[in-house]
Amino acid sequence: MAPSRTVDERTKALVAPVSAAVQSACADPKQDAANERSQASFNPEELAVLMQGGQSKADLNKRAVELLQELPFGDKTRRYMLTRPEEYVGGLEAGVAIWNMRNAGKISHGEAMAMRRQLNWPGGLELHLGMFIPSILAHGTDEQQAYWMPKCERLEVIGTYAQTELGHGTFLRGLETVAVFDPDTDEFVVHSPTLTATKWWPGGLGKTATHVILMARLVSRGRDYGVHSFVMQIRDLPTHRPLPGVTVGDIGPKLGYQGVDNGYLSFDHVRIPRSALLSRWSKLDAAGNYTPPPPANAKASYATMVFVRADIVKNAGDFLSRAVTIATRYAAVRRQTAPAAGARELQVLDYDNVSQTLLPLVARAYALSFMGRELFGMYSRYVRDRERGVFGDLPELHALSSGLKAACTEQTANGIETCRRTCGGHGYSQLSGLPNLFAYYVQNVTWEGENSVMYLQAARFLIKAALAVRGGKLPEELAPSARFLGARGDAVSGVRGARGWADPAAQVEGLAHVARHLTLQALRVLLAANGGQPAFEGAAWNGSSVDLIRAARAFCMLELHRTFVAAVEECAAQGLSAATADALRALEANGDLLESGFITQEQAAALRDAKRQLVREVRPDAVAYTDGFGYDDYLLNSALGRKDGDVYRALLDMAQASPLNDSEEGPAWDAVLKAQLGSTKAKL
Amino acid sequence: MAPSRTVDERTKALVAPVSAAVQSACADPKQDAANERSQASFNPEELAVLMQGGQSKADLNKRAVELLQELPFGDKTRRYMLTRPEEYVGGLEAGVAIWNMRNAGKISHGEAMAMRRQLNWPGGLELHLGMFIPSILAHGTDEQQAYWMPKCERLEVIGTYAQTELGHGTFLRGLETVAVFDPDTDEFVVHSPTLTATKWWPGGLGKTATHVILMARLVSRGRDYGVHSFVMQIRDLPTHRPLPGVTVGDIGPKLGYQGVDNGYLSFDHVRIPRSALLSRWSKLDAAGNYTPPPPANAKASYATMVFVRADIVKNAGDFLSRAVTIATRYAAVRRQTAPAAGARELQVLDYDNVSQTLLPLVARAYALSFMGRELFGMYSRYVRDRERGVFGDLPELHALSSGLKAACTEQTANGIETCRRTCGGHGYSQLSGLPNLFAYYVQNVTWEGENSVMYLQAARFLIKAALAVRGGKLPEELAPSARFLGARGDAVSGVRGARGWADPAAQVEGLAHVARHLTLQALRVLLAANGGQPAFEGAAWNGSSVDLIRAARAFCMLELHRTFVAAVEECAAQGLSAATADALRALEANGDLLESGFITQEQAAALRDAKRQLVREVRPDAVAYTDGFGYDDYLLNSALGRKDGDVYRALLDMAQASPLNDSEEGPAWDAVLKAQLGSTKAKL
Repeated sequence: MAPSRTVDERTKALVAPVSAAVQSACADPKQDAANERSQASFNPEELAVLMQGGQSKADLNKRAVELLQELPFGDKTRRYMLTRPEEYVGGLEAGVAIWNMRNAGKISHGEAMAMRRQLNWPGGLELHLGMFIPSILAHGTDEQQAYWMPKCERLEVIGTYAQTELGHGTFLRGLETVAVFDPDTDEFVVHSPTLTATKWWPGGLGKTATHVILMARLVSRGRDYGVHSFVMQIRDLPTHRPLPGVTVGDIGPKLGYQGVDNGYLSFDHVRIPRSALLSRWSKLDAAGNYTPPPPANAKASYATMVFVRADIVKNAGDFLSRAVTIATRYAAVRRQTAPAAGARELQVLDYDNVSQTLLPLVARAYALSFMGRELFGMYSRYVRDRERGVFGDLPELHALSSGLKAACTEQTANGIETCRRTCGGHGYSQLSGLPNLFAYYVQNVTWEGENSVMYLQAARFLIKAALAVRGGKLPEELAPSARFLGARGDAVSGVRGARGWADPAAQVEGLAHVARHLTLQALRVLLAANGGQPAFEGAAWNGSSVDLIRAARAFCMLELHRTFVAAVEECAAQGLSAATADALRALEANGDLLESGFITQEQAAALRDAKRQLVREVRPDAVAYTDGFGYDDYLLNSALGRKDGDVYRALLDMAQASPLNDSEEGPAWDAVLKAQLGSTKAKL
Repeated sequence: MAPSRTVDERTKALVAPVSAAVQSACADPKQDAANERSQASFNPEELAVLMQGGQSKADLNKRAVELLQELPFGDKTRRYMLTRPEEYVGGLEAGVAIWNMRNAGKISHGEAMAMRRQLNWPGGLELHLGMFIPSILAHGTDEQQAYWMPKCERLEVIGTYAQTELGHGTFLRGLETVAVFDPDTDEFVVHSPTLTATKWWPGGLGKTATHVILMARLVSRGRDYGVHSFVMQIRDLPTHRPLPGVTVGDIGPKLGYQGVDNGYLSFDHVRIPRSALLSRWSKLDAAGNYTPPPPANAKASYATMVFVRADIVKNAGDFLSRAVTIATRYAAVRRQTAPAAGARELQVLDYDNVSQTLLPLVARAYALSFMGRELFGMYSRYVRDRERGVFGDLPELHALSSGLKAACTEQTANGIETCRRTCGGHGYSQLSGLPNLFAYYVQNVTWEGENSVMYLQAARFLIKAALAVRGGKLPEELAPSARFLGARGDAVSGVRGARGWADPAAQVEGLAHVARHLTLQALRVLLAANGGQPAFEGAAWNGSSVDLIRAARAFCMLELHRTFVAAVEECAAQGLSAATADALRALEANGDLLESGFITQEQAAALRDAKRQLVREVRPDAVAYTDGFGYDDYLLNSALGRKDGDVYRALLDMAQASPLNDSEEGPAWDAVLKAQLGSTKAKL
């Protein structure tokens, strides 16, 4: 801040009328935000409760924010300013503190989890809670669980999950770390035979974890039984130094997640007891005789995978809705360029290309949230059926959860970046929250199954269904989501004009037609590459992957839209007319509809008209839809996404915490600038 | 590193055969990289010289790297590890040091500029060199230049360019900062009448600049003459503290550019002399009488804009080529997933969907570089013509430079991110260089004209040309790049089979057809929105912007491809067969070709076949093409983009510099973990 000083009255008088003219023409973003809300056609409060999962969850979120605001680590003022070590230490401190509060009974488990969500500070504890504990529960014997779980709960140990290696990602069979059984001592010798065997990426491994779930090849009596899970200590507890033979450290900075100490880990002939093998399913006796897991176990681990993917899809909705909340609110108060001399600058949201970008993304965010719920529902039904010994739905569930994992993460990652770009210059400021949102989200297109691999899983299901149809199966004999492949469907769309496209049934039929056409086209390419025979691996499959992925993406768009239409019908009372906007977005993105021969040039033009009209219809509700996601300013931590619209004040206030502002002269004065500039006279 | 310790012989003997088996199956990335080069069909050295702009420029780049490697600030080992203050101080130190070496005659100006490029460390000096000095040269009188230039050259002052404000971006007329002339003292009073008048974003403003080119409304004798340039001191030189009435600081962290102190600046009735007004074109006398710039001046500033955009397009090629170099080299040595049990894991570049993503981007990077050269050529021709008083080409040059600015930056920003995603998990590591490449590049879609605004400039040119054709103008009466709108063209493509699409003429004709169709469609939408009359602003223009932007994008794809085809013909000797791959990529991206009715379903399928085949044909040259860009490992600073393929060693080595690795226990031990874990017994 400049020191206060006196400006003489004559100067004030000279400038005052000029200032007054500027001030009277100046827009008031708070007023713009209020105007947006006053023109909404529905009350977003109700919707916000629904989207948070009901009143009790909404209350929990509110309570979590209140709790956090009273705690030192809950202050987000400097969050975007932290160095990596500060972000790492702070995140861990917060994570440990919340967990200790829970253990001490000061807060409930639900409050602890809600606080973690609202604090939104991933750190060294994520994989302890998210992978170490669940692995012990899933793969440990009752004795192993009884031994480890109390220590885990009390944070007397902190674990992580060490699977990926420098040279190996998701391909489990390629892992190079070995655990060789030594029957003479009843121990395994854990060893990294190559540089590429170095474990790489596990969160919390670098400087936090004392233990790991180690994924390594179990070798006994000269035989390699493939990759198994071991629980293994890597650091000495009283000193936190690596145990002998263990090399461990931080892998350096990443895109996002600076608070997480993703680590590397390698072994030089390190001995661990036989009891380190998690033995609920696979066992090794003292003589080194191996018992493989029961065959049904594979299906259990499929279920876990489906659960994780349902969570990823739900999460996609969460992240995209945060991004559209920020971008839409800002576009509503940002004014840029007067359409004519003397006119007021337009709200950015009133530029047609902006509203036609943002509003379909708002609808998409709702669609993704509904899809996540639907997948959780399918998972629950599967678990219920499995308990009755019924496994029929598994291939479909696997295909849907794989494909939708890819489609939803792809749309959210790209959608966040699109939102950021609509914010213009201020979207580049970390204080907008958007660069971080992207950096923290985008990994979802890669982890838990790289997206092209995921699409190909869904494509396998589609190709099998298409072959079944060809072999004479009737639609009702196919899995429900594949029945569109057996349906006849009209060869040519009968939709007329823009109004016709507003009908959800027409939208779904259009998307089904595209998915059918692309599936059959991919099948043709695949058969042509393999002498007329189907193949599901090898050169022919690989050589058809671009077409297969395209078909799977179209299939997922169909599923997503079908689910959205059904969900909107269920809660039409909340006023979700953006449904149709989403639909048209989905259709328009595909030139595929034309290639399939389903629609004509005129119908395509009508489709674009329909989209244009629909976006204009829902424009007055834009800000209300973002309120309907129910995010607190505290969670968003965004100067641009503030509910009250006071974005410019927020930017200026938040910038004060920049470490470069610690002194007026700045950190380069003594080191660089003084010698260069300081010898000159005071004023030029 | 783990302390050395002795492993007993029996343990070694137990593990040795297992290790040997793993080692023998393990891939050697250096060998993979060497194999790629040995299978190339051409020698990339020659191409690398061409792409760097000739032998003397290639030598300069090499020399710059040698010079930098002998200087302390030239060490890039810790570059990805720096805190913001470290990155700011380091970048400024390097920038000042290089400039002082040049001023002292230790290096040539060319060497200084090459060192700045190879060092690649944007900091507080960028706008001094890139905007402050050029503004004084463009808008200062001879006396002003004589006064300021020596000080600028010797870095006795450091300047920046203060235009954008918190509430105002590119819309110059909206700026709120005022400079009110006081004839009694022959001074201006500079004042910020509103919060939104706060200058925001200028690089180097936060803590470095002593002076600014201030863009403010000149008000004299009660009349507002609009925005003018003033040169103004903001900091005291001996102390570097803000002058009275000046508030200045850093705006906080951004997406990329952490070394730059982008700043904010506001004024409380600050007096500057009348001589602060840069008066080459506009003048104010001591009585406050204003003389406006001569009318021809607007055309001069257009020329500057064209030059800047040509540079942006060239730069787009540079950035995309760096990204594809890193991603392609890594995809060639990364192996992932064995196609069948017992088989070797495949090189990621041999997955069809990866090669069909990366190779077209390689071609695109070459295309963007050629386009940049072509635009520079057009600019030079324009400047030559202007000197002869000929201004005819300006509307076309303006349209092309606007549209291509948008198209090229959009493709590069999205292309870098696509490259990053093909790198899987390791693409998230900052050590790959890719997250930074994106963060430093993506602003180009926003600055110097936000892309949708730029596309609309090109659309205006297209619509005018389309109206001229409608009014009876013949193709040869149109600007050369618009002649395709007047050409008849076949109504339906005659291309047969995949081979047919390999013909550049067929590709260009296809793209021309799409651009023509979309221009006419946008015109229809525009006329329909305005009662049959054309409009170039207001609601009808705004309401047609989605279609207008689509048409402009198609027009730019046509220009880009036309230029590429011509350039490749010129240097076919270098073996640039990827040209065709690029073409097909461009075509395929448009479902538009179908919507235009130009091609049939069968032709579309053939187009996809053609692309598939072409990518396979150029696959053996993939790595050689990246060598052809001529980048030194020093510039790329990427563990994954290393020329020798030794990527895993590089990741591990580079990670050692992480500040979290400064101690074995890590920075959270004393503060958080000791209390939680330290009291437990040593080993569980």
